[in-house]
This record gives sequence, structure tokens and C-alpha cells, in this order.
Amino acid sequence: MAESAIGVGLIGCGTVGGGVAKLLREQADLYAQRIGRPIVLRRLLDKEKDRVIQSGLADANIVTDDVDSFFDTPDMQVVIELAGGTGAASVFVRRALEAGKHIVTANKALLAEQGPELFALARKHNASIAFEASCGGGIPCVTALMFGLMANRIDALYGILNGTCNYILTEMTGKGKTYDKALADAQELGYAEADPTLDVTGGDTAHKIAILASLAFGVKITGDQVPAWGVDKLDLKDLNFGAELGYDIKLLAIAERQQDAGTVSVGVEPCFIHKSELLAQVGGAFNALSVYGHAVGHTLYYGAGAGQMPTASAVVADLMNIAAGWYPKAFESMRLTPDLHEPAKLADPDSLQSRYYLRINAMDQPGVIAQATAALGDKGISLSAVLQHETNAGSYVPVVIVTHKASRGDLLEAVKRIESMDAIEGPPVIIRIVDLPD
Amino acid sequence: MAESAIGVGLIGCGTVGGGVAKLLREQADLYAQRIGRPIVLRRLLDKEKDRVIQSGLADANIVTDDVDSFFDTPDMQVVIELAGGTGAASVFVRRALEAGKHIVTANKALLAEQGPELFALARKHNASIAFEASCGGGIPCVTALMFGLMANRIDALYGILNGTCNYILTEMTGKGKTYDKALADAQELGYAEADPTLDVTGGDTAHKIAILASLAFGVKITGDQVPAWGVDKLDLKDLNFGAELGYDIKLLAIAERQQDAGTVSVGVEPCFIHKSELLAQVGGAFNALSVYGHAVGHTLYYGAGAGQMPTASAVVADLMNIAAGWYPKAFESMRLTPDLHEPAKLADPDSLQSRYYLRINAMDQPGVIAQATAALGDKGISLSAVLQHETNAGSYVPVVIVTHKASRGDLLEAVKRIESMDAIEGPPVIIRIVDLPD
Repeated sequence: MAESAIGVGLIGCGTVGGGVAKLLREQADLYAQRIGRPIVLRRLLDKEKDRVIQSGLADANIVTDDVDSFFDTPDMQVVIELAGGTGAASVFVRRALEAGKHIVTANKALLAEQGPELFALARKHNASIAFEASCGGGIPCVTALMFGLMANRIDALYGILNGTCNYILTEMTGKGKTYDKALADAQELGYAEADPTLDVTGGDTAHKIAILASLAFGVKITGDQVPAWGVDKLDLKDLNFGAELGYDIKLLAIAERQQDAGTVSVGVEPCFIHKSELLAQVGGAFNALSVYGHAVGHTLYYGAGAGQMPTASAVVADLMNIAAGWYPKAFESMRLTPDLHEPAKLADPDSLQSRYYLRINAMDQPGVIAQATAALGDKGISLSAVLQHETNAGSYVPVVIVTHKASRGDLLEAVKRIESMDAIEGPPVIIRIVDLPD
Repeated sequence: MAESAIGVGLIGCGTVGGGVAKLLREQADLYAQRIGRPIVLRRLLDKEKDRVIQSGLADANIVTDDVDSFFDTPDMQVVIELAGGTGAASVFVRRALEAGKHIVTANKALLAEQGPELFALARKHNASIAFEASCGGGIPCVTALMFGLMANRIDALYGILNGTCNYILTEMTGKGKTYDKALADAQELGYAEADPTLDVTGGDTAHKIAILASLAFGVKITGDQVPAWGVDKLDLKDLNFGAELGYDIKLLAIAERQQDAGTVSVGVEPCFIHKSELLAQVGGAFNALSVYGHAVGHTLYYGAGAGQMPTASAVVADLMNIAAGWYPKAFESMRLTPDLHEPAKLADPDSLQSRYYLRINAMDQPGVIAQATAALGDKGISLSAVLQHETNAGSYVPVVIVTHKASRGDLLEAVKRIESMDAIEGPPVIIRIVDLPD
């Protein structure tokens, strides 16, 4: 080893932190060989110091619950932040950057909220922030956007970025489970948290697409600018109708450059995509990101989007890339992070063109469908399919309408009119149908 | 722009070279903004100087057909080699490296044959070689293996790495075309060369998997160590039988670490994979690489594996990563290239375990299938399926046999015995069935 060891401090020794400690211990020789210098875990900071010591993740004498003691550790050039959230984690990251330490983080909430400030702080102190693990778990999609696809003007991203939601949707579609049953099973298998709110409402996915879209488009986008609908309101009935029409449902993170308007649109919602699409084949807790570049066309990145070892894989790769000395140079010389860019000009959501799936509950009497479709026609929205099954179920029957492309604003107005009709029961269900580019 | 311009020389202004020149011209501002300095194309070397000038790819005064004049160009820090082949290209690359210039190349044949020497030469002269475009066209799979998956011991690669072959197989499977018809169509559409030999025999794929396996396993593997069978002997009949059994055919590049034996196996052959696999969904001229890492599990990279702009995308990304200053640092500090590693210990191909599809032409008389399957049984090979259709076609009927896992050596011996039977006509067809890891 020509070069000296690089020292690492790890904040947060939960699931992913445990995976990181395990990799650093078990693969120490391989890593030292690859980067030409050993990586030494010098200090672990965790509120539950005793639990960490008992778990045997690391020597007891390097585990601490004292923040000052952690930051006073000598020869600690890199800090891995796995505390999560935007409170203490933010304080830790700022303190480390101000001391000139490089940061590796998996914290999507923090970067989606405070990314531009933190990246700027890093630059100020000649430090770097590596964040592959913040999006797509073990999939090196940040690396692809930052380095591999450099030569492209990126036109669009379509991502399945939350394993919990994708597991739930796969179970609903493939096994006919209700949302509640699929969620309960996901919790039992450890694919969903006890409080799954941030996952199932689309909030976690919104954080990730804010980070990825910032990089892809060279703009500032924060998580709170991303409108997000989750999977928690989905009715199995609609998934079945969609399947009949040739579609699979996915919680998609979508970021599109609106070429004419010079704006970008970013959002998260459950969408129908045609079953023949590669993204439709992404099942269970897996994630994938489709990237459309003006030169390369369509590329797709697939893998485990969460879980102990896949996430640890991304964290340790970042650590090695810093330890090898090239990542700090890349962070400094490539002008990719959102601190260097203007706030995004966001498209008016109502102006977005898409096809839509509508399901209405219509009274089983003459003229109702004509009335409903007339409301769409009055807004210039034409139909590509109507589906109504024979039923004896009662006085209201579900009617599915598939539209051609329409602006969301026009669609919502037409739907409001439909909802107000006497012969229609309850609010119509609206699901966007995404036609992925060729 | 704080930093001075970086000068580039381009050797070979054919299809991909034209794409590179186009990107550098059209996206000059974007690239300069991303890397903080302008990229200037200082010189183009091509035997067909007049054609290049007439094409308008670049100012006439920077185009030359004189090698010395090219290399004498001042302020040229990077040379892009797109001449192809292992003759003149090798001379050019060596000359550039000896002058301390960085190399960007898409030349898989050159790297598969001379990679270790060339990488060593680069190190000696403090230069670097970037080669994303050599494997998988526009897909940043080299970037993923070199940086994004750093923390993994890579256990296996399965790649669809030749767009020509995948297009041909997709047409045969999807549209029932014969091999000859599919090849002719591929040529007409520009997906296959006038002389398609290197593509259809698997040679091109062998070059690519030699490069990728060297990186993934940290060993030296040259292209001539990779046994390769192509798609040119495939009979539509077998694709149809395979489809009936639930399989799609793909020309797979396979590199596997044989965990027990401490060896690696690398090869290229048409394989059946189950239709439900993501790799089976990769259609037309697209490529994909599945990578299995010990921590991250399965990741997959998909995109256009060839073509002007996708390949140019990878070339220009490499150029920008060099121009930004980080790639040379990464090349120097990360010990990934095969010049730093020992020759691979290759597994005995006969020892490899796999399932197999066999088709024999058996005389339509009692006892023949019993005889054939007995030859397999005698080598300890058990069967998972037998398929024979009712037919009035003649005295010989095709019988399909699917085996459980067997060593290739045992299988070949059993097949030799079957072939020698009087009641069997012609050599049996053997196609490997690949069960991808979970």
C-alpha cells in the first residue's frame, strides 16, 4: 500500500449501517486492493450505543453516543450519514462539512430539502457529498446520470423508486390482493415500515425524483415542489380493469422536459403503463429508472431499491470513490449539483398532456354514458375506449373510459362536471396512462 | 470559464466519429458548462480526407490524412480512437499514449486483444484509457462496473451485447422469420454489416465479455480465451420448440465465478432463458447487461448497444470525464484494469453445470426414444421434459429433450452416443438453458 489509510466515521448503526460495517470488515482486503489503500472505520455514533456494541458490528471502544467525541476523532476524513431525517442529520452533515470532511449519505429527505445549501457548503470547505444510496438503493443510477450520460441533454426520467409501493402493487396485480392485505403482507415481510406513510403516499418517491431531476436537468428542484399521489387510495377494481385493457399499474416518478415551453414537470402518481414496457416487468421490491437522453435514447437501470446490503453496496462504493481520490475531484470540477443551478421553471400541472383512465359509477339507465362522454367532448377530449361489463349488481354500474391525450386541466374540469351529474355516484377514479417514448 | 480549453484529436470519421463531431459542435455550450472548460476539436485523421471535408463534419483545415501531421497537432491532450480493428488502431493508440495523451476508444477488438499492454503503457506515461463505448454502446455499464458497484465481489455477468444478433433473434422469434431472412432484413435496415461474420458468429460479443469480465473479476482475460458460438447456425424450429416450453432464445455472453473451484468461466452462445426474465424482454437491436454482486444482488443495465448517436454518447461522456480531470485520477488510483491483475484461472468448459435442450431426429419406430434417453441416463443425466408432436411428416420425427443440470462434458459424450445410433438422423441440436440466479 503506497498510500495511507483513510479514516471513516459512521453515524447511525441501524440496518444499513450494520450492512456497511459488515462489508468494511469482510471485504477489507478486496477494497484495499481496489483503491490502493486501506479503509479504517474509526468511530460509530449511535444513540443506542449499547445495542450497537452488543450487535458486535464493531469494537466496543470505537462506538460512542457522544456527538462531540465522534467529531473529535482524529484521522477521520469521511463521515457516512445514515441517521436519516432532516433534523439531527442536517446538523451532523453541516458540522462534518465545516470540518472539511467528505460526506456519504443515503438521506433522500435531507438532500431533497436542503441539497443546494449542503452542496454549496461542501464546495466552500473543499469537501464533497456522495449520495448514490439516496436514490434507487443499490442501483448506480446517480453515477449513470453524473458521469455515464454526461454527453446527453436529458429529456425525461421515469422511475419506480419505492420498493414498498412496487411490492404492494405487484401483489395486488399478480395475486388479486386488496391494498390493505398487500400492505399487511409487506409489513410482515419487512418490505414496509410499521408506519408506512412516507412510502405509500409517494413522499419518499418525491424526494428521490427531486434529487434525480435536479441532476438530470441541471436545475434546483426541492421535494416540496413535487406533487405526489401514492398507492394508498388504489382500488383493486381499477387494476383489474387496467389489466383487461393491457396495462399494469406502477407508482411512477416522472420528470419531463417540456421542450416547447422551456419548463420541466416533475411528479409522482400511480400510472398505467402498457404491459409490454420494460418498466412493467419490474416486480416486487425492485426499482428501476428509465432515462431518455437526446443522444443515447432510452437507457434503463434496474436493481434492488432498498434493503440492507444493496443500500450498503451504494454507500461503500461512494466511500471507496472518495477514498480513491477521484470523487472529490469530480464533485469539484463537474458542475452538476443543484447549488450551481437556477430554480427549475416548473410547468403548470394543468397544462400537461396525457391519456387518462376514468372510472365512473353510473346509474344503469339510458343516456348516462352519453351525458358523461359529452362532458369530455365539450372540453375537446376524445375517447379511445369504453368498457362496461354486463352486470346484475345493482342500480349503479362501473363504466371505464379511456381518453386520448388531453390536458390535465381540461380533464379535471370535465370530471368535475361528470361528478355533479345526478346519475353518477361518487367521485370518478382518474389514473394517468403513460405512453413511454419510443 | 476558469480553466483553459482541452484539445481533442479524432481518429476515424465514420458513423460514430460523425456522431462525436456532431455532439461536440451542437452541445458545446452545455458541455463547457458541465465541466467548467470548453472542449475543442483540434484535428481529425481519416484516410478519406475528402469525404470527411465534404461531409461538413468539421472545418476543412483541421482534417488530415497524414498521421505525423495529426500527432504533431499542438494542444491536443486527448485522442479519440474510432479507427477500429487491431492494426493501425493499435499503432495510433500506442503513439498517443507514449506522447502522454489520454485515449478514448470504442475498440473492443483492440482492448480484448491488447488491453493489458495498452493499460500498462498508459500508466507508464501518466495517461489514461477510457472505454465505455467499447461494451454495450451507449449503456454506461463500464462506469457501473468500475465505480458504481465497487463494493461488490462480482459473481456473474449475463449480457446481450450484440444488437445485430439480438435483432435477428427477435425477428425470428417474434415474426417467424428464418435466420437468412432475418439477417437480410437486418442488413437492409443497417443493423448488420455487409459482412456480418464478426457479429453473427459471436466474435464481437466475445471481445466485449472479455473486457467486462476482466473488470468484474479483477483478472486478465483476452478475447481468444472466450469460446464463442453465434446465431448463424440456429434453426427456427428450435426457437419454436423453445417457445412452447416457455423459453426465449438470446445470444448470451456469460461470465461466472465458480465459487468452489476458484475459477471463472466465460463464454458466448445462444441460450434459452425463461420468458419471464427481464433479459428475455430485451428486444430488437437493444443490449442489456445483468450483473450479480455479492452485496447488491441483481442489477441490470439496458439501452442501445450500437448506432451512431448512442455510441457517440459514450465516447463523449468519456471525453468529458477526462476533460474534467477526474477520470485520469480514477484510472490511476483505482486498481481495476487487467494490466494490474493475474491471468484468469479458467474453468474447464466440460465441467460446467447447466440444463440443456436437445433435439434429435429419431426414426418413427418403437424403442428409439428409450435408447436415446438411456444414453443420457447412463451418464447420470436426468430429464425434465420430452416433447414430440404427432406428425405424418415422414419416417424421422423431431424429439425434444430437456435435461436437468448436467456437466457439459457428460452431455457431449451422451450426445455423441445418441448421434451414432442407427435410428437417429444427423447431429442432435444442443442449446444451453440458463437459469438466472434469483
